[in-house]
Amino acid sequence: MPSFQTVRGMRDLIGKEAQTFTYIIAKARETAALYGYKEVITPVVEPLELLSAKSGEEIRQRMFIFKDLGDRQVALRPEFTASIARLATTALKNEPKPLRLFSVGSVYRYDEPQRGRYREFWQSNFELMGSGRPEADAEIVLLTNSLMKALGLQGYAFKIGHVGVIRGILSQEGADEKTQNAILQRMDKKEYEEAFKLAPTHRCRSMLEGLLKLKSNNCFETVEKIKSYVASYEKAKTAAENLRDVLKLVVESGCPVQVVEPSFARGLEYYTGMIFEVYIPELDIALGGGGRYDRLIELFGGEPTQAVGCAHGIDRIALALQTQQTALAAKGGKRVLVFSVNDALKGEALKIAQMLREAGVTVEFEIMGRKMAKALEDADKRKVDYAVIVGERELKEGAVMLRNLTKREQTIVAITELAEKIKS
Amino acid sequence: MPSFQTVRGMRDLIGKEAQTFTYIIAKARETAALYGYKEVITPVVEPLELLSAKSGEEIRQRMFIFKDLGDRQVALRPEFTASIARLATTALKNEPKPLRLFSVGSVYRYDEPQRGRYREFWQSNFELMGSGRPEADAEIVLLTNSLMKALGLQGYAFKIGHVGVIRGILSQEGADEKTQNAILQRMDKKEYEEAFKLAPTHRCRSMLEGLLKLKSNNCFETVEKIKSYVASYEKAKTAAENLRDVLKLVVESGCPVQVVEPSFARGLEYYTGMIFEVYIPELDIALGGGGRYDRLIELFGGEPTQAVGCAHGIDRIALALQTQQTALAAKGGKRVLVFSVNDALKGEALKIAQMLREAGVTVEFEIMGRKMAKALEDADKRKVDYAVIVGERELKEGAVMLRNLTKREQTIVAITELAEKIKS
Repeated sequence: MPSFQTVRGMRDLIGKEAQTFTYIIAKARETAALYGYKEVITPVVEPLELLSAKSGEEIRQRMFIFKDLGDRQVALRPEFTASIARLATTALKNEPKPLRLFSVGSVYRYDEPQRGRYREFWQSNFELMGSGRPEADAEIVLLTNSLMKALGLQGYAFKIGHVGVIRGILSQEGADEKTQNAILQRMDKKEYEEAFKLAPTHRCRSMLEGLLKLKSNNCFETVEKIKSYVASYEKAKTAAENLRDVLKLVVESGCPVQVVEPSFARGLEYYTGMIFEVYIPELDIALGGGGRYDRLIELFGGEPTQAVGCAHGIDRIALALQTQQTALAAKGGKRVLVFSVNDALKGEALKIAQMLREAGVTVEFEIMGRKMAKALEDADKRKVDYAVIVGERELKEGAVMLRNLTKREQTIVAITELAEKIKS
Repeated sequence: MPSFQTVRGMRDLIGKEAQTFTYIIAKARETAALYGYKEVITPVVEPLELLSAKSGEEIRQRMFIFKDLGDRQVALRPEFTASIARLATTALKNEPKPLRLFSVGSVYRYDEPQRGRYREFWQSNFELMGSGRPEADAEIVLLTNSLMKALGLQGYAFKIGHVGVIRGILSQEGADEKTQNAILQRMDKKEYEEAFKLAPTHRCRSMLEGLLKLKSNNCFETVEKIKSYVASYEKAKTAAENLRDVLKLVVESGCPVQVVEPSFARGLEYYTGMIFEVYIPELDIALGGGGRYDRLIELFGGEPTQAVGCAHGIDRIALALQTQQTALAAKGGKRVLVFSVNDALKGEALKIAQMLREAGVTVEFEIMGRKMAKALEDADKRKVDYAVIVGERELKEGAVMLRNLTKREQTIVAITELAEKIKS
């Protein structure tokens, strides 16, 4: 007998859970449309070469890698950005900028499964290419805000930072890019002691330590503190100013920024500017995040292209909605059972079912060959709204019996008026 | 530099093609809702054991199989039915019957790529479990009909058959199941000579040969011919009668059946009853198909459960829509560019953009820092409908300049009336 299990870290979604997933995906797609992002669909299976070009060593070690029957080294995408970068450097190479692209689907990472973290998980992904201006950064944060709001999440807030601050200090202190990445990676995991050990100079180490301590209740104040603190590091200072500009646009637009963290770093090595994450108070995992990555497209052989993007974790958002017991916006729509009193009338009953569906009514046709009492009892249990009973006598008059299962009333209704009656 | 290619047999979908895909998926989901099918989401990666339990040898050899880092033998799903069968025998085991389940997503087969056939392709999948009655078979055909109709495909038609006819002859002639499968597989590929060689008796061979020749312009006539032809094969005769009952319901409901093929066999070994495929005249590949598989759930260790299901090839439907140059139902919705005349007003402009999006308007915010003339020229080129120009003077009056890019007219509009004005 075959295994009934899913592969470790992967799961089946049914009922309410599946409904929540498709709901979140629909809202993400709606958000994309409202912001002018065009949807693209890329493969789940990609050349290993493509996926490892940009991902940090850490993600590389956590990919599902294998050879296909043609002996090609392939892997399951751990995220969308590499595939989108391919598009930007090939099929969409000559499209006028800005390019606004949206994707949604499953991605794969071989992590230790835990609450909100799976080996197959779903993301919605937005990329905005061609602008280095603060309003581009702001747009990515704001569309995340719109999505969170549209989903009905409560009390969510953004954490914002800028990798340019730390990179600015590190590069001026002589850390090469590899060292910078190693330090950022450890800081992202809050392994500060490990991170500081890698600092190339003593002064660098103490700068980083001091940066960590900069805090304030007001996010603009924090940015100003950062700016003065790194005053002698030209690039770091420019980064802080850029962060302030983005922040200003974001906060003015009513987006809840909870904290600016000078020491905030995100796992992926390719960020070059503003970075952010969004949280709800009840969960300590980010529901989404992103940032600026101005050198990525070059890495894929394209023209230098300024870019900013973000991804939202659909599994985590589903968990957040469940945690906050958010009611999904009802789809409305009545449910109807169509039943024929005998086999000879099944064809006629099917025709009526088709007509109702074409009018947008959800119709379950009785396919179990049950007696009427049993079928109605079952429909009642499953909270079906109406039963349409197709009988000889009424049919001769061009009518059927319509039974309201909630009110337990029934009336004879002309077939031509049936859909209207049910929908009203 | 990394590879810019997708993996052989897989592809990126952009622009119109991606739009067509999401359109087809939306229509499939709509059809599922109208017929009362609940969506489930299952993993792309499944235990090899699960996937090979039901698939014929042929599909097994064409799967993407590999080991995960935990040394588990896994594979990319070649179709949905095994995963759905798991659900039916585990999480949904005690759900009242009938079970109506819908899935949509990508599936994987290592086939030789050709027009309409990819190694990663997309399916919408419907399964109806718990009924062996003709109206259940009919429902699966009819919902396929509804989907084709909703998509606006022209001249599509169904090919219908019943594997019980051939299996009935073969079993009475002493062919074991393995032989039956081998014969059906070859007949599916129209390798009739190869198929007939495997017939266990001379009479069996000549019965099959004769079956192939039964044809008629009227599908009910064909069924009657089959019925008389197999009169001495009890099971085959019952199968023909069942086919007639299904056909009656389907045709009465206005579903275009083009042909009943007595020799029609579908690749998958697990079919036990009615089988069908749907085609458009311009393409010789099926856009979808399915049938009855009453013994599958048992194979997965569940209670014996009568079941019927179908899958639709989204890549092929997209090709069909393209071939017939079908216009996708327009999404409607105006596109607007929001532009601020200077940097100081960007925050205000962003707020107006947000307000418009919340009213359902697609807004592209000017993020390139372009001068107005350039931004408007670009918007015009991309067929944006309106530009909202946020300027100092109008803003003081609570208004903005609204420029109709089609009519090349502009008027001052109060911010409170802006959304209404644009949408009207």
